[in-house]
Amino acid sequence: MFSAATYAERRKTLCARLSERGEKGLVLLPGHSASPMNYTDNAYPFRQDSSFLYYFGHDHEGLTGVIDLDAEESWYFDKGFSMDDIIWSGALATPEELAARCGAEKYGAENTLEQMIADAQKKQRPIHILPIYRADTRMRLVHLLDCGVTEANTYISEPLIQEVVAMRSIKSIEEVMEIELALETSYAMYANALAATRPGASERQIASILHSTLALAGSTASFTPICTGRGQILHNHDYTHILHSGNMLLIDSGAESPNHYASDITRTFPVSGTFTDQQRDVYAIVLAAQEAAIAKCAPEIPFVDCHLTAATTIASGLRDLGLLKGAVEDIVDAGAHALFFPHGLGHMLGLDVHDMEGLGEDYVGYDETYKRSEQFGLRGLRLARKLQRGFVVTVEPGCYFIPALMEQWEAEGTCKDFINFETAKQFSEFGGIRIEDDVYISRDGHRILGQQIPKTIAGIEGRMHASSQRLCGC
Amino acid sequence: MFSAATYAERRKTLCARLSERGEKGLVLLPGHSASPMNYTDNAYPFRQDSSFLYYFGHDHEGLTGVIDLDAEESWYFDKGFSMDDIIWSGALATPEELAARCGAEKYGAENTLEQMIADAQKKQRPIHILPIYRADTRMRLVHLLDCGVTEANTYISEPLIQEVVAMRSIKSIEEVMEIELALETSYAMYANALAATRPGASERQIASILHSTLALAGSTASFTPICTGRGQILHNHDYTHILHSGNMLLIDSGAESPNHYASDITRTFPVSGTFTDQQRDVYAIVLAAQEAAIAKCAPEIPFVDCHLTAATTIASGLRDLGLLKGAVEDIVDAGAHALFFPHGLGHMLGLDVHDMEGLGEDYVGYDETYKRSEQFGLRGLRLARKLQRGFVVTVEPGCYFIPALMEQWEAEGTCKDFINFETAKQFSEFGGIRIEDDVYISRDGHRILGQQIPKTIAGIEGRMHASSQRLCGC
Repeated sequence: MFSAATYAERRKTLCARLSERGEKGLVLLPGHSASPMNYTDNAYPFRQDSSFLYYFGHDHEGLTGVIDLDAEESWYFDKGFSMDDIIWSGALATPEELAARCGAEKYGAENTLEQMIADAQKKQRPIHILPIYRADTRMRLVHLLDCGVTEANTYISEPLIQEVVAMRSIKSIEEVMEIELALETSYAMYANALAATRPGASERQIASILHSTLALAGSTASFTPICTGRGQILHNHDYTHILHSGNMLLIDSGAESPNHYASDITRTFPVSGTFTDQQRDVYAIVLAAQEAAIAKCAPEIPFVDCHLTAATTIASGLRDLGLLKGAVEDIVDAGAHALFFPHGLGHMLGLDVHDMEGLGEDYVGYDETYKRSEQFGLRGLRLARKLQRGFVVTVEPGCYFIPALMEQWEAEGTCKDFINFETAKQFSEFGGIRIEDDVYISRDGHRILGQQIPKTIAGIEGRMHASSQRLCGC
Repeated sequence: MFSAATYAERRKTLCARLSERGEKGLVLLPGHSASPMNYTDNAYPFRQDSSFLYYFGHDHEGLTGVIDLDAEESWYFDKGFSMDDIIWSGALATPEELAARCGAEKYGAENTLEQMIADAQKKQRPIHILPIYRADTRMRLVHLLDCGVTEANTYISEPLIQEVVAMRSIKSIEEVMEIELALETSYAMYANALAATRPGASERQIASILHSTLALAGSTASFTPICTGRGQILHNHDYTHILHSGNMLLIDSGAESPNHYASDITRTFPVSGTFTDQQRDVYAIVLAAQEAAIAKCAPEIPFVDCHLTAATTIASGLRDLGLLKGAVEDIVDAGAHALFFPHGLGHMLGLDVHDMEGLGEDYVGYDETYKRSEQFGLRGLRLARKLQRGFVVTVEPGCYFIPALMEQWEAEGTCKDFINFETAKQFSEFGGIRIEDDVYISRDGHRILGQQIPKTIAGIEGRMHASSQRLCGC
């Protein structure tokens, strides 16, 4: 946890911002309960709700935070523990100690919380909650608010969402340091994975290295790692294939820091240690797109412009390869490049790997000025609005050859004036390439976070050759 | 998956058993949805509901099975897939193909299912469901059955629970083979962990070896592994300590087979490679208790008798060590041994590590003849009723010195005529020992499943010395 002062300060700021907007009443932040896997007591590893973590810090189950906007004070509610809990889980701190650790003025047990909510409802004080994305949280709110299943949604407060998004969007130095801690684990994951990648290795072997590196660092995955020789399947969680010379291995993975901040890195490298000419051509395009997009990152620059910079670079490169035709600007306007780059450039990064996605993507990435496009590809962009100092974003363009999608577009005639489908068919076995880094928006520009993980063609090939020589010489 | 015939046969049997009891209507088996971690699209690794797996086999999200008891036919419902699913997750089989793979006569989409349920309700046909242990499943049933949150419970069918428990309790040869596959992974986990355990290693390093061994086997943990130098905390999931000479490391872990059957093994071994005299004394008692309990396992033997055999062995051993006093029989009757052995002997093992716990422990482990005790220790026994051929159970006695519990009993005077609290205090730093194997109940007795993982004092010490010599000599 950060210091008690950090959490107290955050709650005070939230309170002030909401009061300034004329909001009154209670902010109710339920923590997570355990998520049962195949029966109640066999739960997945516990993951706290990120907004609860942001304002109250504690990451065990059965907690609730309340911020009283009128009294300007915070309550920490904890279900407490019994002798059985001590026997099964060891000695635990008391609710009083835990309240102090997050700087909450007051603490109480479940019945106090229920009474507080009931009193507030009786007095018609507003109760503000965030969007509900877990069924167990919904059940808990239905109980606490004594309301119907969908009626719970009526307590979702747009002012609360907006102020939480505004606060969580700007990362403090200690938050950035957390992301960099997660990136240290990412660095070790990629170093170990690169060293082990060779023809004949299985996706599963490499995935096992990612998992053991995470566990050894005392970390957990910020999302299920993608580790695949078939990178054209964007969220491929299957590890059943053997890697052959000529394949590329795409790894998209992230770690969590001790305080649950995420890293998110993607690298694509040749299984043999050397890219083929065709791979080299496409890799150079994706890398150029990533570097151009990162170069553009700075305060006041709309992230959609960074996306379009990447799209333009990819369109131009694929036009040079004969896959696209026509003027680059027209290709991008029509969205023809999205056949090969069908997703957005990136997203916010923080306590969630898609930061604050649970609060609603449009609140996080869009605003009055920047509205979501309906065009294929662009409509998947999670962040379009202007960057601000303190944002941390991922920049992750990619280029994929997805046979089913190419067949569909050819059959429909989608963007047929811009696409050479015959040339594209020569790439049907190609797979996909994605390159991703985590970028901090600084006062004057940006900074790529973490120690650099090889990403140039020379850097990747050099590292892989060095690894294979070490192995041969041992 | 097993063959389509396996699932078809199981459903036919369930149908026949329920019909024989005069039950009519529909059996509704909802599969699991994804479990969100910190926002909807960032889900935990998917785990299917075990009863759905048992009767329909498929393990992806968004499925529902219906068994029509009157028409004697089964329906497989699948939400299907879109082009977006292909782009993000790769090519998928059609619902028609998937229905055929589990031998379902009929298949349909979500709206067909909703109509079928609505029609059944209109015609007042009974709808049978199993107990609900996940909030997301409850929400889905509330929608499908068009009922209130707690009203969904009125559809829980005792005849269905009883017949499912009866069927799932008896393991077929192919199910036992699955448990043995999971045990192969367990064997590798313990071999690797034993080889790496030495003074100065951290719990986290050993846990990381467990995780990488699981991942390399393409398996997942059947529950969060316990890997601790402080075995007196029964479900200790903390890995933050360094292991010192003189500590014992307790590992309680399990793997899942390809078809999601669990293994569950516990071993306790000395970090230095050699038990101290005190550890040796207690270890010998726990091992004797485990071997005596296993020796008793056979059809028609109530598992509570196996538990009491272990309890008697432990009471006798601890009496010899001066920790308990009085007649062994009286100690066990009074439950005084439970200060040091506060949990039950074991549980059923199958598709769940505590098999069928989600259906209700009393349905699984108790019956008309065997009722749950209220005595501390014995009340935690998950299985008391008579063993039958085909059961697979864990046998896992333990002996722990839990300072908080010893203090409480001494202060309360609990079982003071049988406990030498002063002697017990000499063990306050001892920690805990548990030894667990998975046992198949055969026609005439039992068989310990899987390749033997060292558990005698000589076996463990010999293996650890061999590992340390290999390391020194390399």
